[in-house]
Amino acid sequence: MPTNARADHDPPAPEPVEVLLGLGSNLGDRDAAIAAALDALGRVPGVEVVEVSPLLESEPVGGPPQSKYRNGAARLRTTLVPHALLAVLKATERAAGRVPGPRNGPRPLDLDILTFGGRTLDTRDLVVPHPRLHERSFVVEPLRALGVDVDAIPRIARPRVVDTPAAVQEASLAWRRGGCSIGFVPTMGALHEGHASLIRRARAECDRVVVSIFVNPLQFAAHEDLDKYPRPLSADLELCERNGVDLAFVPPVEAMYPAGFASRIAVGAEAEAMEGAARPGHFIGVATVVARLWSIVLPDRSYYGRKDAQQVAVLRRLQQDLCLSGELVECPIDREADGLARSSRNVYLSPEDRTAARAVPRALSAAVRAHRNGVHGRDELLGLARAELDAEASCTGVDYLEIRTDLELAPWPGDRPVDSSARILVAARFGDPATRLLDNASFRDEPPVVG
Amino acid sequence: MPTNARADHDPPAPEPVEVLLGLGSNLGDRDAAIAAALDALGRVPGVEVVEVSPLLESEPVGGPPQSKYRNGAARLRTTLVPHALLAVLKATERAAGRVPGPRNGPRPLDLDILTFGGRTLDTRDLVVPHPRLHERSFVVEPLRALGVDVDAIPRIARPRVVDTPAAVQEASLAWRRGGCSIGFVPTMGALHEGHASLIRRARAECDRVVVSIFVNPLQFAAHEDLDKYPRPLSADLELCERNGVDLAFVPPVEAMYPAGFASRIAVGAEAEAMEGAARPGHFIGVATVVARLWSIVLPDRSYYGRKDAQQVAVLRRLQQDLCLSGELVECPIDREADGLARSSRNVYLSPEDRTAARAVPRALSAAVRAHRNGVHGRDELLGLARAELDAEASCTGVDYLEIRTDLELAPWPGDRPVDSSARILVAARFGDPATRLLDNASFRDEPPVVG
Repeated sequence: MPTNARADHDPPAPEPVEVLLGLGSNLGDRDAAIAAALDALGRVPGVEVVEVSPLLESEPVGGPPQSKYRNGAARLRTTLVPHALLAVLKATERAAGRVPGPRNGPRPLDLDILTFGGRTLDTRDLVVPHPRLHERSFVVEPLRALGVDVDAIPRIARPRVVDTPAAVQEASLAWRRGGCSIGFVPTMGALHEGHASLIRRARAECDRVVVSIFVNPLQFAAHEDLDKYPRPLSADLELCERNGVDLAFVPPVEAMYPAGFASRIAVGAEAEAMEGAARPGHFIGVATVVARLWSIVLPDRSYYGRKDAQQVAVLRRLQQDLCLSGELVECPIDREADGLARSSRNVYLSPEDRTAARAVPRALSAAVRAHRNGVHGRDELLGLARAELDAEASCTGVDYLEIRTDLELAPWPGDRPVDSSARILVAARFGDPATRLLDNASFRDEPPVVG
Repeated sequence: MPTNARADHDPPAPEPVEVLLGLGSNLGDRDAAIAAALDALGRVPGVEVVEVSPLLESEPVGGPPQSKYRNGAARLRTTLVPHALLAVLKATERAAGRVPGPRNGPRPLDLDILTFGGRTLDTRDLVVPHPRLHERSFVVEPLRALGVDVDAIPRIARPRVVDTPAAVQEASLAWRRGGCSIGFVPTMGALHEGHASLIRRARAECDRVVVSIFVNPLQFAAHEDLDKYPRPLSADLELCERNGVDLAFVPPVEAMYPAGFASRIAVGAEAEAMEGAARPGHFIGVATVVARLWSIVLPDRSYYGRKDAQQVAVLRRLQQDLCLSGELVECPIDREADGLARSSRNVYLSPEDRTAARAVPRALSAAVRAHRNGVHGRDELLGLARAELDAEASCTGVDYLEIRTDLELAPWPGDRPVDSSARILVAARFGDPATRLLDNASFRDEPPVVG
């Protein structure tokens, strides 16, 4: 038995709050439906109908062909909490004969909470102030008739841009309390179409989307390109806005690594091969920053591109080991028209090297096509891929070219025939100064198409 | 603007749910108040009053002297969600003239949700089935009059005992969604009065309390006492029950470290001195398991005893670095009557060694008392403490005896006068086989009293 069940405590008596309500009807006896609803609401304990605007005629917005609306607004006072009032409004709509139908379809009664006192609420099923309030004359006019200063009602800007962990935690906590699922796309900025595809997937699968933009010094070695890593912030934020991001987290380094920061997370052997060998400490930096970011955002789902297959494997390990909640969603590699995997580093390539870089997907493609044609020897497949890279003069080095198990990326024994559960991974350098390009392909999927 | 605001989507029409409601009144015209409430509820959109039991007289339970109650029960059907119905009931109570008063005080109207369909709800302000339903004849009799099989209504057992991270995450998520704050006391079991004091503090400060019982192999070195560490599980669970724990998490090793587990968290230099030097890898094991436990429980507050001062410093660092949410609450050292700090390892001491072990708090006390009498030299204070330990033949070794800064536990320079911001820390071994005892004291506080 809970020792602290509050069921028989009296909460403090709430102060009545003024609520502005949108009224609409375009089926049946419209004026009667609205009047009956207001009469019913006035009898609900904790609800008082203070004032009702004159009703006006308006054209329906969106939805199937349908008749005109009667619209108005009402001023209520209530001691109910917002979601209790919302539930009563929904029950009132149902009592008027409203049944679930298409979005913006015809309806005998439509009751919308437009404002709830001075509160800002951003929950799964109730957002106040109503996000489309200012755009709709059939809402604005009745409100003005009630003497409301509509322009003084705040509009919610998206994305909200914040730079402290505390601000993200506050937003995330409020969303979770409001029943919202949260999708997270951690990035180092320099956003391109590959990031946009991750964001759009998060947008489609989650109620709210958070993007972080942070060039993480901890995952760069001393000789690497930390300082010259591109940071086109305003273009990044425009891409976020276009793709429906709710919150952009753009911390300065000291917000991510405040004075005294000392923790490091190592994620075992799979972080020491390939990228881990080429970039010592890289995955310690990745795991440490991502653990911190995940704890800040507490996403239901976070989204990663498979181009960085080893990073995904490391983060999957990290997530399982630390029991970090949420789902890690791995998204297909996004490629440019000629087959090159999209990467923020592609902008470093000279036009000539950019052309030569097609050797990377061509190498993967050569191995996958040969495999489909019956070649199953690991070293033979690697040799075919290697030949494509070696044929390009501007390919100045191959950090690794390996066949490994998919997902876990465990080494593939040389005497085991390569089957569809294998993946081929490459890191190669092009040009001078060198740009490192990463790519990989599964032997299960279609080979990359190279233009 | 949120692209997915659901405010104008129609949710699927909910099925009406049967609700059993407790009715009570002991102020004013009791029968009229109950009848008026049922009349008002019947007019609320989404609520139907199906059946009302006869009313009976009952003695008030608890609270100040007051007159008898009229009690009954009603069967409702509603399409409102539980918290919307709850809000309407509270507004109905207020409309009947109820004002906030003492717990179990007199009231003109009392409406309690007893059951809500077959649902189990455990939220901050609403727990169903009502946890005290079965104990109260003034609830049971009216329910029986409505034909309800009261014995078939489930009772909630506390603590719930679970052994998988998923079960804890599910409970924790449901509590957070229900607005509950969560207090967490991670332990290695062998619970004693020191743990109980942490649990009671969590109970007083949080809506729900989770205790984990897990002897963490990762924080024991190969030569240490992992196998013989005490594991008195049923006594531990009884202590949890007595102290109002809601959930006990008792995982087997493979639930905490499943196959493939590879991550390790190092927390920097403060983890390498003192305990870290005496027990290499100890704090990596502590940080790794606690990060995992925190991610599983997601506590609002977690509770630690200051006896393990360095552990608290390490965990504070970990929490800040990984931005783990919630507050780390450090609780005073709990001591036995003779001054020895409570520890699960005290049971290892023979009666003679148990007596000799009082030298540990005596050593700390000697230093703190000398400091109060004007001794401020670091080495002189340490010498006074050391003499107390050296005087005991069964003290077979002192792993460390140091004065450091409080909280951060940074080294205290030998030439800096010791002030009240310092702490003295000791680890000493007693008996054969040796039992390691830890203790510490602040120069700000009263010296430990040794009997």
